[in-house]
Amino acid sequence: METYPPIIRTIIEQLRKLPGIGTKSAERIVEFLLEMDEDELVSLADNLRNLRQNIKLCKNCFSISQHEICQVCSDTTRERRIAVVEEYRDVIAMEKAGFRGRYHVLRGKINPLEKVSVDNLTIKDLLERLEKERPDEVIIATNPTPEGETTAQYLIGLLKARNYFVSRIATGIPVGAEMEYTDPETLRKSIENRRKT
Amino acid sequence: METYPPIIRTIIEQLRKLPGIGTKSAERIVEFLLEMDEDELVSLADNLRNLRQNIKLCKNCFSISQHEICQVCSDTTRERRIAVVEEYRDVIAMEKAGFRGRYHVLRGKINPLEKVSVDNLTIKDLLERLEKERPDEVIIATNPTPEGETTAQYLIGLLKARNYFVSRIATGIPVGAEMEYTDPETLRKSIENRRKT
Repeated sequence: METYPPIIRTIIEQLRKLPGIGTKSAERIVEFLLEMDEDELVSLADNLRNLRQNIKLCKNCFSISQHEICQVCSDTTRERRIAVVEEYRDVIAMEKAGFRGRYHVLRGKINPLEKVSVDNLTIKDLLERLEKERPDEVIIATNPTPEGETTAQYLIGLLKARNYFVSRIATGIPVGAEMEYTDPETLRKSIENRRKT
Repeated sequence: METYPPIIRTIIEQLRKLPGIGTKSAERIVEFLLEMDEDELVSLADNLRNLRQNIKLCKNCFSISQHEICQVCSDTTRERRIAVVEEYRDVIAMEKAGFRGRYHVLRGKINPLEKVSVDNLTIKDLLERLEKERPDEVIIATNPTPEGETTAQYLIGLLKARNYFVSRIATGIPVGAEMEYTDPETLRKSIENRRKT
């Protein structure tokens, strides 16, 4: 059987390791790469090659940055609240939502099944940072998943014991969704978290 | 709003142009790239950079090849039948299915809506090649889609007029599928193409 030429086979194998890309999509992508503008392809290749040299973790909040200290941490106009999130992608999500405070990226969540414990996260750095920065509020913005919730509860205990003002982002029915199609657990949370008007 | 550092923004834009990758998946992939083994990332980048220099179209069949003439065309043990397919991916599919003849890649299908006409395909090259090679059979293996079918009918007319033995791959119920869930058009074709046992 004739299979792909070696370089194509290797690229397919490499693409398959990326999230959300299976064998079929990897094959499709390679076929596209073979047809696309060659300068574009070379530019993509060079950007991938340079990505890691160009990117660091912010020394303060562990978000991703092109400098030692990220743009948000260097921005003196930011509010004195820190949102504690699991990953860099959550920073982006909160920025898109218009949040104007700072962040602390845990770089994961407590997950005993995947052997991620408190020590693997940036919790120690968070505590040191809070000591120094003394923010007005710490918003626990981990995901409302079992692991995110476990992480949130752990952090809430830890921070309240240290007398920080701690809040947790709300869970409820997404904007634009219909109650009829909302899962019962979300609806239950939404009722539980109801606000006086 | 803090957005991605420039290099990440550029990579996301570039990944989004690949088939099957939207903004969300591009963001996921970049995040993965930031975490993955750096040597692996550099190797992927280098392979992408080298892909086009390493790959040519076979001068005979227009399949993809690391040499002037592809592995299949150079293989003297191949049967004297030529399967005419739309794209390189169809060569791979037929190889996986155990086909032992040769191929001719049209590099598209007749599609008036996208302004792909007979002249944009490798039909002229096919005719010249058939003159020389005089195969025992030409198997029209374009997809059973409207465009593939149009292309097939065009080719069948053209090749029969030149007295080639022409066949068309069968359409019918996929192996393992159930009649109950087969679309009526496929079932109709499957009945029409029934074979005496």
